[in-house]
Formats: sequence, structure tokens, C-alpha cells
Amino acid sequence: MSRTDRRSIATVCLSGTLEDKLTAAAAAGFDGVEIFDNDLIASPESPAALRKHCEELGLSIELYQPFRDFEAVPPDVLASNLRRAERKFDVMEQLGADTLLVCSTVSPDAVDDDDLAAEQLHLLASRAAERGIRIAYEALAWGRFVNTYDHSWRIVRRADHPALGLCLDSFHILSRGTDLAGIRTIPASKLFFLQLADAPRLDMNVLQWSRHYRLFPGQGSFDLPGFLRAVLAAGYDGPLSLEVFNDVFRQADPRPAAVDAMRSLVSLQEAVGHTDIPAPPELAGHSFVELSAAGPETAATLAALGLTHAGQHRSKPVQLWQQGNVRVLLNSADASGGTRIGAIAVDSADPAASADRAEKLLAPKLPREHRADEADLTAVEAPDGTAVFLTRTDAWLADFTPVDGPRHDTGLTGIDHVALTQPFDHFDGAALFYRSVLGLRPEAAAEFAAPFGLVRSLPMADPGHRVRLALSVAVLRRGEWAPGVQDPQHIALASEDVVASAERMRALGLRTLEIPDNYYDDLDARLELPAGLLAKLREHSILYDRDERGEFLHFCTPLGTGSRVFFEVVQRIGGYAGYGAANAPVRMAAHRRARLGGAPTS
Amino acid sequence: MSRTDRRSIATVCLSGTLEDKLTAAAAAGFDGVEIFDNDLIASPESPAALRKHCEELGLSIELYQPFRDFEAVPPDVLASNLRRAERKFDVMEQLGADTLLVCSTVSPDAVDDDDLAAEQLHLLASRAAERGIRIAYEALAWGRFVNTYDHSWRIVRRADHPALGLCLDSFHILSRGTDLAGIRTIPASKLFFLQLADAPRLDMNVLQWSRHYRLFPGQGSFDLPGFLRAVLAAGYDGPLSLEVFNDVFRQADPRPAAVDAMRSLVSLQEAVGHTDIPAPPELAGHSFVELSAAGPETAATLAALGLTHAGQHRSKPVQLWQQGNVRVLLNSADASGGTRIGAIAVDSADPAASADRAEKLLAPKLPREHRADEADLTAVEAPDGTAVFLTRTDAWLADFTPVDGPRHDTGLTGIDHVALTQPFDHFDGAALFYRSVLGLRPEAAAEFAAPFGLVRSLPMADPGHRVRLALSVAVLRRGEWAPGVQDPQHIALASEDVVASAERMRALGLRTLEIPDNYYDDLDARLELPAGLLAKLREHSILYDRDERGEFLHFCTPLGTGSRVFFEVVQRIGGYAGYGAANAPVRMAAHRRARLGGAPTS
Repeated sequence: MSRTDRRSIATVCLSGTLEDKLTAAAAAGFDGVEIFDNDLIASPESPAALRKHCEELGLSIELYQPFRDFEAVPPDVLASNLRRAERKFDVMEQLGADTLLVCSTVSPDAVDDDDLAAEQLHLLASRAAERGIRIAYEALAWGRFVNTYDHSWRIVRRADHPALGLCLDSFHILSRGTDLAGIRTIPASKLFFLQLADAPRLDMNVLQWSRHYRLFPGQGSFDLPGFLRAVLAAGYDGPLSLEVFNDVFRQADPRPAAVDAMRSLVSLQEAVGHTDIPAPPELAGHSFVELSAAGPETAATLAALGLTHAGQHRSKPVQLWQQGNVRVLLNSADASGGTRIGAIAVDSADPAASADRAEKLLAPKLPREHRADEADLTAVEAPDGTAVFLTRTDAWLADFTPVDGPRHDTGLTGIDHVALTQPFDHFDGAALFYRSVLGLRPEAAAEFAAPFGLVRSLPMADPGHRVRLALSVAVLRRGEWAPGVQDPQHIALASEDVVASAERMRALGLRTLEIPDNYYDDLDARLELPAGLLAKLREHSILYDRDERGEFLHFCTPLGTGSRVFFEVVQRIGGYAGYGAANAPVRMAAHRRARLGGAPTS
Repeated sequence: MSRTDRRSIATVCLSGTLEDKLTAAAAAGFDGVEIFDNDLIASPESPAALRKHCEELGLSIELYQPFRDFEAVPPDVLASNLRRAERKFDVMEQLGADTLLVCSTVSPDAVDDDDLAAEQLHLLASRAAERGIRIAYEALAWGRFVNTYDHSWRIVRRADHPALGLCLDSFHILSRGTDLAGIRTIPASKLFFLQLADAPRLDMNVLQWSRHYRLFPGQGSFDLPGFLRAVLAAGYDGPLSLEVFNDVFRQADPRPAAVDAMRSLVSLQEAVGHTDIPAPPELAGHSFVELSAAGPETAATLAALGLTHAGQHRSKPVQLWQQGNVRVLLNSADASGGTRIGAIAVDSADPAASADRAEKLLAPKLPREHRADEADLTAVEAPDGTAVFLTRTDAWLADFTPVDGPRHDTGLTGIDHVALTQPFDHFDGAALFYRSVLGLRPEAAAEFAAPFGLVRSLPMADPGHRVRLALSVAVLRRGEWAPGVQDPQHIALASEDVVASAERMRALGLRTLEIPDNYYDDLDARLELPAGLLAKLREHSILYDRDERGEFLHFCTPLGTGSRVFFEVVQRIGGYAGYGAANAPVRMAAHRRARLGGAPTS
């Protein structure tokens, strides 16, 4: 068969883990695949095993992709980029892949110099040629300097190396409406690869923005208080009226949506000083997190994390587990629906003011039964049904009879954050709820491609960063074809030394979520971590992230049987402000594997 | 309480029918509402009844909205616009609403002339003032000539009429980043209304387009065959590889997605002449539509539509109902899952070639049992599970024993189209399936705001317009909070005179879906139909649409008990090419009402 009769698909086109994707592509009769770097990184198969796996499925590996931000950079960046490339060549050698896709640069390090780009791509191609690899250079439609196919062709022609050619992608060319006539002028020998995609004509102009993406005040990015102050200063004395066109609200239950709407206006009026709502009291931290329908398996995990069964509620089937400022309640009363986070509690400087504020912001108060000699705690209901207690830790601890469980020190200092996956219809409402009722502030929102669909995340924290919540939601919805990994929640426990914690927890029998070697090989290619640290991370399946202010090390437990909840142990170094979102896709694929029966080991 | 302590919400913010929205707004404690024109039109409550309803709920009607495309037009258009406005003033008088929102024009009839705009708005305001109504003029961010608040203020100042003022909308102002300082210069007496909305910062640049909205070839708008021909002409001889980043595919089951992907490439290869797939044979029309799990209620509806029980299958529990070229099969074999469209059948000029084509395009062949003396029909499975028969009508009619049912002529000539609501994950795949397997061509796609969420529709037809399918899907998903109206399907029967058909069907006892009076009042305001026609439409709950080529008249039946299926009777006049999508929201609200127990009457 002629080469152009061969049909190939990039693994990025399909949902699931790399294994899911390859199986589906082979079953549909594809001859080959493009292996997407991130899919490989999240896979437990070594590149060599993957090569064999593809061979067994009758799939050739047509392309390894993408490699980014290589060309037209200063010498020190070039050296680092070449090192990174060599690591990826190692992977390709094992994979048996002979073509690497290199996208035109979007890096702030790059300069607008075609000669320099050509020279450095020539160098990359000679290194590649030594390994039997060729480089397909592709102009991204949003490339910083090179964004049309004819420009990429001028650079490739100037570089003039047999192992350097072009990849043409229909999207990048047709989306810009570039004239196709120039394609005929490129020699066939330089047309290394062809990627095909269609697309609808889309124009996100202000009309589309307005008709589909408006939000209630406080759910978006506009300075509504500033705007309202300007209008009030002009003497406006009509009603404050919401006009919000939003695709989600159009299909969501109007009853909670109307409550969100009202809360947004009350909160806006507070922001311009038009209400008598008490200010949010200072928060000292997470007072506790309560797991509903929690059984012996969850207790065993807590024990292996080094928490102590420290108390038993005097009138309810609730256990207190504790280490330092970590307090987790296990409630076995309601065994329906699987283990989940039933309640979170904040340690408020003034619980009565917190409760007053919550009521004025329309937070539904939850009825609570308690004996006369027990604490009368206020709890309100968040949009996803989670109970939120507004309390002081010393007010409720007395309700527990001390238990003399075995005590261990695994270095835990407190609850770093609680991660709550939200039901699709309630994400913006939840953000507004926690912002207004608890006075949390939204932090950097992120969006990432997870194995089962795009995920949006919004971390929130009080001004003192003592209470952190990480909200997330499927941007469309989470793929229902991959059961058992829907809407996970987790409790992140802070450690001052995550490697030491991992070692002590292993001694206590903790099973951690296994992270594939490919992840660490990529970490090495990207970040040049000290070899000793990298080995420790690999040994304990610890994930790593860094930002401009610091580092983040974290590992997870598998999901328990019938449970939505897992635990994470995290260490923040320096001023790292994030939550490791970059590692979430790898973690999600690992959780799916663990659920499918791959035995997770420590 | 001060006027600015009043909190109001536009009904367009919330999902559901107008009744659902008002109930939710009142329960959340709102003081008032803006009534959105389209919500009123789809409501069965007269404006006077609605006024009373709002009073009972404690809601004032703060604004009626929107009125569009009024100002800066030639005299004849002005006369028509004033007539339209007077009709809406009638509605407002009954509603007891005193403020009408008028958006800055986007009409191609308008001219860029502030003096003319001011003069005509002055005229509108004087007419309004006679009725005790005032006009709040709002600059849309995408207004053709007027798109900033300061520009709208210049026009209002120039018009200088006490009943003319401004509506400020935070979205239109903040989305453009307009300086707010000018707001202080507007006299308070001219600030008639304030609409509040927040929004995320959004930029649908080519990168976002590429990362979220790519499609497989043939699912979008790009000329992929032209592109591929250009690349092949240059001598490219590598594989054809798909690289598609798509939010839906990211979360959809990868197995059918991979089949879609492969079908897209096979179809693309056909388009550039690289395969030996037989061309799609000519289609003569819909051969039949089969309803699964169909019981006596469906049979009674068919009888009232004037179809005859004309045949009984020789070996299966399947009835043939017929009038002219309308053939509907009722299959009572599988009673699980409620009544639905189980199969559609096309009348192919060459069923064997159709079957060969379907197989080469990876359409899964459905196993079929038949006795030796019965027709051997080929059926393939569409992505949503519907069986698609590739047949000739004379080939299967002989399998039915004639039944001598009562015969009526209600003017039906054939099946105009079949409307199939698609499962969310399979919309683009379904479009590709019908396009490639049957050779149908996509027609004008539409998107409209339905009561339970945004709906996207894509009609398709063969080149002769004899087989028409109307695919639709919830853009996000259909609100699950409104049960009983999920994913309706329908069969549209063509009539040469829909009014005469309605009269004859009424005599046969047909119950049609009741359409509210408000719809006809709006039709009158907009289109100036002859009074006799309007009365007939109103009498028979017939919906009306027109395009530049002709007119479309159509009415529907309610959904049967436990059924996803309703029937529509349609008449095309002139070259009308659409499917009445503009009326779909009204029809959907009516179906919900009928399901909730409002007795639909003829």
C-alpha cells in the first residue's frame, strides 16, 4: 500500500489513558498513531513495552509529539533545549519512532531571527540524524515569529539538512486562510508529515461572549463594585437588576440558580457598603473534615498515614482521628452512597458572626441534633450538599471521649487544603458561596486536559492562607464511559518533609498511588533536578511542581473501595502558591489504573 | 426601602418556562423581574394574568425587554417599527410594566446618523409617554453604530424627551473597557435602568479555537479535500494522520470516537478520489419510519392523523400505517424504554450499492432475522443506535398482509423529515455518519435558546431534498431538573394545506399541542399576517415561519405517555428551506406544559 493510504491518528484525539486510546484506534482499523508526549508520561508502560504493545495491535508509531520552544534562543537556553531533546530521542529510540514533531516557538526566550532559527534547527537535525531520527518542523498558527507554512518552509530551506523537513497541519493553515498554492513549491522530500483536522468557523466576539458566558456578579473577573459605585455616584436610584445570559444557567435548575443570583447581589451591595452584614471573621484553619459512610478501610488508611484514633463522639457513631492540627472525623452513620466528604469545618474567630453572615447571604442552615451537654454547632449547606461548619475547634472537641490509640509522628502539621469536585451545574455557584459566605478569595484558575475530559480548577483561600479549598469541575462533563473514577475528592495533609513522611508512612503500611517511570524521565528531561532528589521522588511516587516562588512535592493514596475520597500528602517549599494542577492528569490516569485492578504498591 | 435596595432579575437568567423562572425568583427573595419577550411569547398566561401572577408572588415587573432595531431607519421601516412598538406597548399596558428596553440597532436597514436616531427615538418616546411608558435606550457592545454608553448618552441628550433615558449594562461597558468617569456626567433623571452581569475574561483566539474545537474531517467547515489535493500534488507520500483537539472527544468513549475518526479519513480519501467506494445511490425518499415499543396510544394518534392501518407483518408484531407516501411501522415487540424511533428507512435506487458503501464506511451492519419468503433488508446502526434501512419500498411491502382499515384523506403526501435528538457525545459523529453513509448534505446549522438549555441543530438532506433529517443536540446538555421532556424525537408529515389537514384531523379526534395566544400576538406585531390567516393559525395552534424564499406552517401533537416521539404536520410554501427552528422554544415550553398536566386541547 502507498504511504498515503496509511491512516493514522494522534492519541490526543481520543479520551482515556494511552491504553484505552491504542485499543480504540486499533479496533477502528488505524494503521498507525502519533504518540502524544503527555499520554506517554502518564502511562506505566516503558517506551520499549509500548513499542511491543503497538506492534501487537498492528499500529506503527508514525510520530512522537510535540517538542516545543526549541529554536532561535540564546546559547544557554539552547544547551538546555538540546539536553531535553536528547532525552526525548532516548524515548523515541525505545519506541522505535523516527519522526519528532517540533512546533515553531512561542517562548519568551526566543528572538525574531530566521538565520538563528535555521542554524539551531540544523544543529538539532544533525543530532537527530545521528540517532536515525528526523525532525518535522511545524508552524503553529499562533507561533511567536513563525506562524505560516511558507515561513516555516523558508527556515527549513535555509537550514538545509536532510533530517529536517516540514509537518503541515490543516488547522494551522486553513484557520489563517493562507493561500495553498505555495504548497506545490515545496519538494516532496521535505514534506515529512501531514496532520489533518477540520474545525467549525468560530468567532468569539463580544456578542458570543455576552450571549453565552455572562455570570452573576462575583463569579467572573469584572470590577462590578467599581462599576456600581460609579453609577450610584451619578445618582441612579432604580433597582439593581441582573441580566445574565449563560449556557449553564440556561439548563440548570432555576431554584438554586435564583438563590445564587440573589447571593451575588447581596454580596455586591456589601462590597459598595450598602448592607449591614458582619465582615467575615478571621479563620485560623480547617477545624476538621468529616467523611461520611466511612468504614474500616478508611480508618486503616488514616492509621497508615500516622493519624491516631484519638476520640469517640459521645452520642454519635463518629470517630476523631488526629495528628497535630490534622483532624478527620469518620462518620459511619450513613453508609449509603459510598465514602465522601460530608462536611468541612472552619475554625472561626467568631462563630456567631460567621453564622450571622452566612444567614444574611442566604446559606441554608442545616438542622443539627445535639444533646444538651454537647456543643451547638452551626452548619450551612454548600451548593453541592457539603455541610460547612462555622465553629471553634475547642467548642466541639469536648464532645469526644478520648481514646488511647497508638500514636505516631509522620510529620503532618495540618490540613493544607480540601479538594472538592463540583457537580457540573454548581461550579460558579460554589465559588460564589465560599467567596461570600466564608470570605475566601479566588486564586489562579487553571484549565487542564485530564484523561477523561477537560477540567477547570479554582483554588480559594482566606487572606491568611490558612483555609484553602480547591474546587474543580469537568468543563463539559467527565466521561461516563470510564466508571469508578467520577468526581474524586481529596484531603491534602501538610508535611514539613514529604520524603520523610513517605518513609515513615511506608513503615506503617501505607499504600501510595504508583506513578509511572515515564513521568520521572520527563521530569528529568524538563527540570534537571538533583539526581538524589529525583531518585527519592521516583522511589516514593512523589509528584513535583515548581513555580517562580517555590516548589511543591506531593503524593497520593489510591481511592478506597466504593469511595470518592483519597488523601494527599503535600510539602510547600518557599512561596509556592499552587496545588500541583500540572500533575493532575498523571494522577488521574494512575487512579484509573488502580481502580482497574493494577495493584498499586508503595 | 430605597429604589436601589430593590433587587431584580431578568427572566432570561434562569432555566425553564416563565412559570418556573418566576417561582424560583420569588422563592429566592427577589423584589422584581425583567420580563424577557421570548419568555412571555412561550407562556400560556395572558399579560394581564401574568401581572396578577407576579403580584401574588410579590414581584414587580421592572422592565420589559428587549425591543430591537428601532432607530435611524428609512420612513417605511420606521412606520413598521412604530406599529411593532405599539403592539408591545399594548402588552406592557396589560403587564403593568412602565419601562421598555430598546437596544441600539444592529439592523442593516439603519444608517449612521445620530440626528436621525435621536429624532426617531424622540418620536418613540412621545408615543410611549402617551401610554405612560418610558424608553430605556441601551448601547449594545456590538451595536452597529452606537456601542458605548457615552454615545448612547449623546443621542438621548440630543433627543431630549422626558420619557427617553438610558439603560446601563455592566457587561456592555466593562467588556469594552470603557472609562467609567463619564457616568458621573449623566443626570440621575436620565439613568432609567441598570443591568448587572459579570463575566470571565475570554479570548477566543486561534489557539483556543485549535485546542478545544477541532473536528475530524467532514465534521467542520474547512475545505479538507482541497487542502489534501494541494499536499498530494506536492508529492507528499506519508500517512494521513488526524490531530484533533476537541473538548467533547476528550471525554467521550474512545471506541466509537476512533470509528468516527476512521470514517472521516475514508470519506476524505473518497473526496480526493483515492478509494473505490460506490457513490451514494439516489434516494427517492423516506421508505418508512419504525417506532419501537409503540402501543395503542400511538396507533390512536396515527388514526387521528388520518393514517390507515394498512398491513400486518407476516411474522413479526409490526403494523403498517399509511397514507400516500407516509409509511409508519409500529413495532410492539420491545416494550422496554418507552416509545422511540427505532428505525428509519431510505428508499434507495440501488440498495446493494448503498449497503456496500455503508460497509466500506464502517457502518456497523445490524443482524436481521427474516423468514425465507421475506425480504432480506440491510440495516446499519447509526451512532445513536437508530437502525438505518437501505431498501426499496416495493422490496418490503410484500412482507405485510393487507389489512382493511378505515381510510381517510387528511392531505398528507409523505414524510417531510425525521427529527432525531442526538446523545451529547455523538452529535458530530452522527452528522458525519449520515453525510458519508447516506450521502446527505448538511444544511444551515442553527443554535437557539430553548427553555431547558441551548440547542444546536443541523438539518441534512440528499441532493434532491427527498430525505431530510433534522439532528439536534443540547449544546451543554439538557437540564435534568425538568424531567419528562428529555431528548424528544419527531416525525414531520408533509401536507399540501396544513389548515385543511388540521380541520380534517380535528374531525378525526386529533389532539394538537396548544400554542399560547402570546405567540400569535407577537407574530402579529412582527409580521403583519393577513387577519384571516392569523385567526386560522391561532385556532389550530399552527406555528409560522418565513425566510427569504417562502413560508412554513406547522403544528404538533403532544408527547404520548412514556414516549419520546411526537408528530408534526408541516406545509412548505415556496422555497422555504428551514425546519421552523425559530418556533422550537415555544414548542418545547408547550410540550413541558402538556407533560405537567395542563390539558392540551385541539
